Amino acid sequence: MQVTRTLARYVVQSKPQQIPEAARHQAVRSMLNWLACTIGGTVHEAAIAARALADKFSGPRNATVLGTDQRLDIFHAAWVNGITSHVFDFDDTHLRTVIHPSPPIAPGLLALSEYMPITGERFIEAFVLGVDVACRIGNAVCPAHYHLGWHSTSTAGVFGAAAAVGKILGLVETQMCWALGLAGTQASGLRENLSTMGKFLHPGHAARDGMTAAFLAQDNFTASERILEAPRGFGHVLSPERNFDEITAGLGERFEILINTYKPYPCGVVLHPAIEGCIQLIKEHGFSPDDIAGVALKVNFLVLEVTGKKRPKIAVDGKFSIYHCVAVAFVDRHVGEGQFTGDRVVDPQVVALADKVSAVADAGVAADEVHIAVRLKDGRELTKHVEHALGSLKRPLSDAHLDDKFRDLAAGILPRGQTDKLIGLCRRLPELKDVSELARAAQVA
Amino acid sequence: MQVTRTLARYVVQSKPQQIPEAARHQAVRSMLNWLACTIGGTVHEAAIAARALADKFSGPRNATVLGTDQRLDIFHAAWVNGITSHVFDFDDTHLRTVIHPSPPIAPGLLALSEYMPITGERFIEAFVLGVDVACRIGNAVCPAHYHLGWHSTSTAGVFGAAAAVGKILGLVETQMCWALGLAGTQASGLRENLSTMGKFLHPGHAARDGMTAAFLAQDNFTASERILEAPRGFGHVLSPERNFDEITAGLGERFEILINTYKPYPCGVVLHPAIEGCIQLIKEHGFSPDDIAGVALKVNFLVLEVTGKKRPKIAVDGKFSIYHCVAVAFVDRHVGEGQFTGDRVVDPQVVALADKVSAVADAGVAADEVHIAVRLKDGRELTKHVEHALGSLKRPLSDAHLDDKFRDLAAGILPRGQTDKLIGLCRRLPELKDVSELARAAQVA
Repeated sequence: MQVTRTLARYVVQSKPQQIPEAARHQAVRSMLNWLACTIGGTVHEAAIAARALADKFSGPRNATVLGTDQRLDIFHAAWVNGITSHVFDFDDTHLRTVIHPSPPIAPGLLALSEYMPITGERFIEAFVLGVDVACRIGNAVCPAHYHLGWHSTSTAGVFGAAAAVGKILGLVETQMCWALGLAGTQASGLRENLSTMGKFLHPGHAARDGMTAAFLAQDNFTASERILEAPRGFGHVLSPERNFDEITAGLGERFEILINTYKPYPCGVVLHPAIEGCIQLIKEHGFSPDDIAGVALKVNFLVLEVTGKKRPKIAVDGKFSIYHCVAVAFVDRHVGEGQFTGDRVVDPQVVALADKVSAVADAGVAADEVHIAVRLKDGRELTKHVEHALGSLKRPLSDAHLDDKFRDLAAGILPRGQTDKLIGLCRRLPELKDVSELARAAQVA
Repeated sequence: MQVTRTLARYVVQSKPQQIPEAARHQAVRSMLNWLACTIGGTVHEAAIAARALADKFSGPRNATVLGTDQRLDIFHAAWVNGITSHVFDFDDTHLRTVIHPSPPIAPGLLALSEYMPITGERFIEAFVLGVDVACRIGNAVCPAHYHLGWHSTSTAGVFGAAAAVGKILGLVETQMCWALGLAGTQASGLRENLSTMGKFLHPGHAARDGMTAAFLAQDNFTASERILEAPRGFGHVLSPERNFDEITAGLGERFEILINTYKPYPCGVVLHPAIEGCIQLIKEHGFSPDDIAGVALKVNFLVLEVTGKKRPKIAVDGKFSIYHCVAVAFVDRHVGEGQFTGDRVVDPQVVALADKVSAVADAGVAADEVHIAVRLKDGRELTKHVEHALGSLKRPLSDAHLDDKFRDLAAGILPRGQTDKLIGLCRRLPELKDVSELARAAQVA
């Protein structure tokens, strides 16, 4: 079975008109969400550190660092924008694999558009194919790969980045095999780093390394042509289980980008049902956080596995604590980046309420579902069942909601008029003659 | 058990005078061998492709690309020199783990010396510590890690690069933990690429990514402080077996660089006993290659596992074929890079003789050992037992042999006078006031 070659051939032979309209629309939504997260993320200290390092060692400054006045060479720009787009945990999610597809794949493509002309049509095609490559490889090895400890966003993402950039560079079939071979041999990213800045590095290095793989392959830098399926290839070495049919079945018929999702809250998707339900409860019933005697949640098992941190001490830990999220949702009636600051995670009122929250995993509860029971001090018990959280596949964020999210994230970074122009440009991405226009429109004057 | 922190603390607290004289001498030998391989490797097409890509995107050109007139920013220089030093498979080998220690660790340090002043004493210390970090981590997970399919040169090497560069940058203990955390989350390199140019990329990306990890940590870019031992850290995710005592026991007492070795032939060490024995046999007995009716080898199991390719078709495959190596050793009575060209691997006389070679693995044969039986057409049978191959721990290459190897590799690239000056400088490395002198001395005028 030629897994790598079959995938490479598909990417090389695909034509823009073979991308269905629904996939194009979803690509626009993904790019819009990614641009918003990247621009908003520029204020994060990890993004600032990455920019400072890149600035010292940048080559020819062809490419835009989104939401700043900085320009960098295309590899550093891909690295910085990849890191920055992930810092708020507000990026898109392919729920089946929990891969965040845009952060490893969009940055290289967008930087490349400032190095060589790319039409919107070709950009969208390459992006859709890149997402397909990354998520299909993710499907083949997840959940076993993820459970073992790999952060699939970067380990699978690097293949998507290589395929997308390689498509634009016009690689022939064997070169595309090599690009995947060179991507796979750079696949990395450990979940052990998930509650640290190390996590944010992952899509950055995937974006840059995937682009490196494509450029080297273009210059006939050889690699294995069986990196996915070989006994010592990616599928066997990085995962205890694998199903290569997931990679090769239905190519050109099924597009993974169609099941991409976007978050209403800047934290792991598994927290979203509880946050949404708590905000609804307090708004509907008008009680005060101080009225709460106890909160009992029935949650999906992933909630406790990934976000079971009882008492977060530092900002980044807040996003890995269901207890903090529930408490701060009640206190602030809103969950944005401001609810995950160093001050907010140790706020006495929030901490006291978090201590009253209990959560049990229930095999009958889906990942986008929650059962909440709030006991008030006056004896009342209020319950809420969120069957499908906002932002899930069943209740996707509307285009208008995405535009609002964009405006919220860009506020204070870009002038409102520039933000609206940028949203408009992104909505017209498939028709743009030259995608670099989009990148330049996200530059701070 | 605090594995990562214990290792980080040792590296941070170590003082130059705590490095024993024998380790310093071995560091000089490693650097000499590494410089030679890097200068010689510049003619390889993989090195040329890497230089071309790096040249397009380089930042401030502070650093020397050894054996060329090119200068690159320190990250690109580390990447290019790391790739180039590995292209001939002539680099050093830590036999216990088959890690090639210098290619991932030396390039970043040497490039750094052209960015900030480093004395020879501090350079040697950082290099010895980097080798210790990489090889101890290798010891902890090999051979299981290697057998699974990981190329330990890069997966363990990236930690060594981070530790060495971090030592020079003056990281404090927790920053050094982060540097290791950021290194581990970039650890990659699949053995599936071993017979392709993809292999050569491995020490390049380890050198660059390790340096990136150290620079980010210096700017307080956080990461896991338990990347080695955590349940979803390096030791558990990248290896089915691990023994963390190998990392922490005898720090400052046992130095892995003392068991570093250097190759007399530019191919995997497992091939060396057979090559040496065949050259000795034909020189001692004066027969012609055409006189040979058959050759029977009893070899270590790794020979067939790693170099069992029966009929190499392209240049790079020659280094993964015990059959080609034996045949070409008899025909040419010498094995250098010239015995692994595209022409040589398909030469009719060599191919015909290779077809007469058989090899069986024998559990009683060590990795540096071989039994050779040559049957001549006149009926004579000649035998040779190489108990410990030249270049093995028991029969290390002499300093003079290393100097000769250097001159051979640099011939045609650097003028002889410059080569001799460079060898002299390297031999005085521990006393140099500023190691950048060594880098500049390896530049083509």
